[in-house]
Amino acid sequence: MAIDVGFKCVHHSKVKLQSMEEPGAQGIKVRWLINKEDGAPNFAMRLFELQSKGHSPLHSHDWEHEVFVLEGTCQVTCDGEKREAKAGYVVFIPPNSKHQFVNKGASTLKFLCLVPLH
Amino acid sequence: MAIDVGFKCVHHSKVKLQSMEEPGAQGIKVRWLINKEDGAPNFAMRLFELQSKGHSPLHSHDWEHEVFVLEGTCQVTCDGEKREAKAGYVVFIPPNSKHQFVNKGASTLKFLCLVPLH
Repeated sequence: MAIDVGFKCVHHSKVKLQSMEEPGAQGIKVRWLINKEDGAPNFAMRLFELQSKGHSPLHSHDWEHEVFVLEGTCQVTCDGEKREAKAGYVVFIPPNSKHQFVNKGASTLKFLCLVPLH
Repeated sequence: MAIDVGFKCVHHSKVKLQSMEEPGAQGIKVRWLINKEDGAPNFAMRLFELQSKGHSPLHSHDWEHEVFVLEGTCQVTCDGEKREAKAGYVVFIPPNSKHQFVNKGASTLKFLCLVPLH
């Protein structure tokens, strides 16, 4: 894929919405807002959209998540602890913790989730 | 400062709002939502709040910014190019580009701005 390392300034809705087919994921789509192809050297910004009852896989990995909830109601599980996060909440998932995001509301849940680029 | 590397899930308003006294900055405050002290190994999430006509310094540095606008109207300058970014816009400022964020609206401008940790 071509690399465009320039200035980017665009509404998130202009970035392609892709299905997430990973095992354990349901009713979840993602926009890769800032990625390697934009010239990002260190970390990527994604925007996730979960339909009601949609969820990410319950899993762990050796990198962190930095999350900001934009719309909706999210149940976040991290190493067995469950918390509710609404619009304006910030969530840090440390590396190697078992975590999951579930849309517990009736409307679409939208959150940013940033990850390091390896 | 103590390091707490655990799960964090909190509304952004609970994180301390600090003045930004950097030369060239005006009417701008910041909340460090996720930082080294939270155990972040790679990058930090900050939330900036600019009053009307407030602005960041016009400057450059060798690291990138990954930005998401939450509220208000932002004029973003990057290497002489000026763009308008409203709520829902994503902005990538490449390393070593001369950039500035200005609140062109009447209401408070709020945006997330993430940076690598060195």
